Amino acid sequence: MEYIYEHKDKVRDYECDLQGIVNNANYQHYTEHARHEFLLSKGISFAELHDQGIDCVVSGIEMRFKVPLKSRDEYAVRINIKKEGIRYIFLQDIYRLPDNKLCLKAKVEAVCLINGRLGDSNILAEAFGMNISGK
Amino acid sequence: MEYIYEHKDKVRDYECDLQGIVNNANYQHYTEHARHEFLLSKGISFAELHDQGIDCVVSGIEMRFKVPLKSRDEYAVRINIKKEGIRYIFLQDIYRLPDNKLCLKAKVEAVCLINGRLGDSNILAEAFGMNISGK
Amino acid sequence: MEYIYEHKDKVRDYECDLQGIVNNANYQHYTEHARHEFLLSKGISFAELHDQGIDCVVSGIEMRFKVPLKSRDEYAVRINIKKEGIRYIFLQDIYRLPDNKLCLKAKVEAVCLINGRLGDSNILAEAFGMNISGK
Amino acid sequence: MEYIYEHKDKVRDYECDLQGIVNNANYQHYTEHARHEFLLSKGISFAELHDQGIDCVVSGIEMRFKVPLKSRDEYAVRINIKKEGIRYIFLQDIYRLPDNKLCLKAKVEAVCLINGRLGDSNILAEAFGMNISGK
Repeated sequence: MEYIYEHKDKVRDYECDLQGIVNNANYQHYTEHARHEFLLSKGISFAELHDQGIDCVVSGIEMRFKVPLKSRDEYAVRINIKKEGIRYIFLQDIYRLPDNKLCLKAKVEAVCLINGRLGDSNILAEAFGMNISGK
Repeated sequence: MEYIYEHKDKVRDYECDLQGIVNNANYQHYTEHARHEFLLSKGISFAELHDQGIDCVVSGIEMRFKVPLKSRDEYAVRINIKKEGIRYIFLQDIYRLPDNKLCLKAKVEAVCLINGRLGDSNILAEAFGMNISGK
Repeated sequence: MEYIYEHKDKVRDYECDLQGIVNNANYQHYTEHARHEFLLSKGISFAELHDQGIDCVVSGIEMRFKVPLKSRDEYAVRINIKKEGIRYIFLQDIYRLPDNKLCLKAKVEAVCLINGRLGDSNILAEAFGMNISGK
Repeated sequence: MEYIYEHKDKVRDYECDLQGIVNNANYQHYTEHARHEFLLSKGISFAELHDQGIDCVVSGIEMRFKVPLKSRDEYAVRINIKKEGIRYIFLQDIYRLPDNKLCLKAKVEAVCLINGRLGDSNILAEAFGMNISGK
């Protein structure tokens, strides 16, 4: 798969649990942070959107855990995006560096809440070079 | 759906993010903690298993986020379990209390690593009253 | 020492790190959650205060780590409070249950920001039965 | 103050709480991660030490919270170290970038547990160019 964005980072020891591997919930943090960095690279601030009454919320996540990351590992979160109706689908894979071993495959479905109601935001669609129907 | 186990708890403020709602990754924490409590109720300690060379690891998660939990909300994580081959499938739903509004539907797939290799542990199957093939 | 409030809880496995003990930062979470529960018991909601433009912020913390908590441990966070000028000093000790072994001694200094500026809030002083100078 | 090590990083949105600022406990994470990076730069792995029966544990922390970090802020954790008897004292200050506003002053006291007993590890003292008495 080709990706349109990549965020590189490194495991922090406190993210590892008593099994000595990164606790699963942290992969969700990794994907969220990479997604927000991707949005920022498109000029979209998650926090500013919130202040404007627009909340991007995750409505669903599917994750497949492959090779676990450990203390000191570096990794890359690679991202693709597509639009299905009013939903944005982020395909996010995490690879260990430098051997590019696949650690996580995630599919994250997000929707926009505009003043608390489900809606569609031109800001996002335009930032991703999509029209409102995702083309 | 009927459930075989329930763990009740309360949102902690630090679990809420700048949108004022529980950050999604924390639902994964909630489901993990409830699962471990469920295992403990069956006499199985996640930490002791690890010391014996048996690691229960989550191989996949699917979550649907419904109503978000907020500061001060109390909630119940309700659990069912089934076995498919060597995989344990935990169906875990989170309800807000006292109105029983559905907040999260999660399907968590776990496998056993015995000394690092994929295997099947009688300890778990027996604890859940299943034979090795999950019946 | 006598305490005026107690919050009981239980270690969650994801709070333990690769040393098999509760990661230190989580003790800060424990003290924060217990403090907010204490405030709630006095009719004060941390989140509602924030919506009214009043933010209680921690300006300083001192912690002494004694016996570490481990997986499955239950604990009690016990609290005292005093006022020094415009600062609220929370003395918070964490004990392992049921053996009452001291795990943490914390001194947490908090101040009120009213619309972003350092101030004093009657709401808090009154809730704790103090006058504005802490008597 | 002059520092002997610096770790730069960036706030992740999930580290901010409902007040819109980085939750205090995360500063403890920041200081821990920077400390472990510092140790790694000296050839010392926190996780490998643990496997050898040597656990560096934090026995005390003092933190003064100054300017809060917010979503998207970049920061530097700057470190100094001194030895007092068998204790290692890490002086760790966090500055917002690029304006170098002081956000946190932390004093972290660590000791070595060797197979669970308080001791002194040559590994650490030598890595920091100190003799056993910290000179």
